[in-house]
Amino acid sequence: MPNPSRNPTRSYHLRRSPPVVAIIGATGAVGNELLGVLERRRFPLAVLRAYASPRSAGSVLPFCGRDLTVEALSADSFDGVDLALFSAGSKTAREYAPIAVRNGAVAIDNSSAFRMDPVVPLVVPEINQAEIEGHNGIIANPNCAAIIALLPLWPIHRRNPIRRVVIATYQAASGAGAAAMTELREATLAFLEDRPYPPRVLPHPYAFNLFSHDTPIDPAIGYNDEETKVISETRKIFGAPDLRIGVTCIRVPVLRAHAMALTVECEQPITPEEACGFLSDMPGVRLIDDRERNHFPMPSDATGQDAVLVGRIRRDLSDPSGRSLAVFAAGDQLLKGAALNAVQIAERLLP
Amino acid sequence: MPNPSRNPTRSYHLRRSPPVVAIIGATGAVGNELLGVLERRRFPLAVLRAYASPRSAGSVLPFCGRDLTVEALSADSFDGVDLALFSAGSKTAREYAPIAVRNGAVAIDNSSAFRMDPVVPLVVPEINQAEIEGHNGIIANPNCAAIIALLPLWPIHRRNPIRRVVIATYQAASGAGAAAMTELREATLAFLEDRPYPPRVLPHPYAFNLFSHDTPIDPAIGYNDEETKVISETRKIFGAPDLRIGVTCIRVPVLRAHAMALTVECEQPITPEEACGFLSDMPGVRLIDDRERNHFPMPSDATGQDAVLVGRIRRDLSDPSGRSLAVFAAGDQLLKGAALNAVQIAERLLP
Repeated sequence: MPNPSRNPTRSYHLRRSPPVVAIIGATGAVGNELLGVLERRRFPLAVLRAYASPRSAGSVLPFCGRDLTVEALSADSFDGVDLALFSAGSKTAREYAPIAVRNGAVAIDNSSAFRMDPVVPLVVPEINQAEIEGHNGIIANPNCAAIIALLPLWPIHRRNPIRRVVIATYQAASGAGAAAMTELREATLAFLEDRPYPPRVLPHPYAFNLFSHDTPIDPAIGYNDEETKVISETRKIFGAPDLRIGVTCIRVPVLRAHAMALTVECEQPITPEEACGFLSDMPGVRLIDDRERNHFPMPSDATGQDAVLVGRIRRDLSDPSGRSLAVFAAGDQLLKGAALNAVQIAERLLP
Repeated sequence: MPNPSRNPTRSYHLRRSPPVVAIIGATGAVGNELLGVLERRRFPLAVLRAYASPRSAGSVLPFCGRDLTVEALSADSFDGVDLALFSAGSKTAREYAPIAVRNGAVAIDNSSAFRMDPVVPLVVPEINQAEIEGHNGIIANPNCAAIIALLPLWPIHRRNPIRRVVIATYQAASGAGAAAMTELREATLAFLEDRPYPPRVLPHPYAFNLFSHDTPIDPAIGYNDEETKVISETRKIFGAPDLRIGVTCIRVPVLRAHAMALTVECEQPITPEEACGFLSDMPGVRLIDDRERNHFPMPSDATGQDAVLVGRIRRDLSDPSGRSLAVFAAGDQLLKGAALNAVQIAERLLP
């Protein structure tokens, strides 16, 4: 359960509002969405600065009808910055987030660099926003598959604690970045035109194909990094260190929304109707469960949506105890799975 | 467990060899593969006849370097036929398979029409070929997702009985026929060229999208027909009426190979190494489980292959008892999932 105040001596708010905001990794898939989400949600801004690697410096990004010129990231970039939104990978986050914090900023990091650090809050605001209060300058944004799984699990878990979850994911290209999205489009066009297309970004042919998630595998247990993130981050966010989770992460030829099949076992019996009631009340979740029209969560409906779509809620027929349900979910990997969740955290930091 | 002789008074063999063979539904996706499999496996043939609906009559199909002209199916089509391979849907099978049998043929049916009929053997030869002996003229070919799931489950089940399976499928377009495969290609090209493409064959947009299987849903339990087939056919083929199965069937934008994530709970503890040993000995299964190179079963590797590819064999971390494993499989839906399995049954009918 959330620890409301790890650091009661320091205000958790940004030091001023409207804040000076920096996006680190502004030219990436998540960076681009961060710009869109800040604009759409009218996030209060004194100044917005966009940083990226030297290779991308000088690019111009549209923001609120104006041009934002991307600068090369350096140790000096955080002077006067109040809020630093990192979407630039673990290495950059490890190097620069502490610099941002030393400059008085709060850093919200999309990478996995700090997620499992016990003093860093790992936050999905609809679930554990109270954790934000204990931050020491860095707040971690969870793994995209974890966020999309947890939003439908939480309203069940808090009424009828979940003992076990088995998850099979259907993950989009966007999780591997903008270059992987381009590769999916190009590889597919090449396939349709009967041209060869050697994979560049992902390790396997992607046109009309799917494959086990392309993160390294722990040889001792056979789980890949994406799967171990889903397990450990779920336990941290739920404050449930013993929650039993089995997960298979698969990359599918979809552009930017993850889907997943969840089999959930609760402590007490639960009916699909009860679960639908719990899910209907959950902020950030939209129930799409139309059996007659065969309409359930799909990436095409989830793309561009803030809400995680949830449906196909039914008894798990493999558990005669009546304690297990099957659920299917889909959520925009770049929005709730990344940029939107980060901005929602930032909104809670405004004084 | 198999019932070796439901009908001991009648020979289960075809009445002559080489037989006169008829393919019913020859112009469909499975029919086309039946031709290819018969040719490739040099199935002994006196005559091969190809039947389809009147609309397709007159089409010419290549077979063994010659032209095979498709005829319109009628009640007279089975005169002199020894073996009738049906790949034409349940309605056609229900009407014409009994006519074929009255004419002295054995009918092998790819549809679901007869699968759950208690006097009709439902056969995956590597698992329960002894069932063939009891046939009364009709033998049913199982659902494609069931076949691809069962091939890796069987070698585990017969050493350490499986109590529970949770399955999430990643099913290809081919399961909905040749028109769905064309729709996937056309819808995807339209998407890439930014043109609208209203779905015609499948109920939802298919380009870079996935959706719950497009079969009707039982309103009482919320499972679709594909899912209930996987459950009931698995139980029948394994002779395990109480096997607990939970399944979610999802259509993914892949052309012709199904994949699936299986979570398997056995009666006794089992290690991944033991399971790999069992799977290595299983005919029709090929182990692809290279953690270092991140190479596991993929539709692109399974396409055109007879074997079901199996890998990612690891402990199910959600079950601390050591009795559960996670497995990923991929198999060509048109080959082992349909045409190949039917021809393998037919081979066992040759006198």
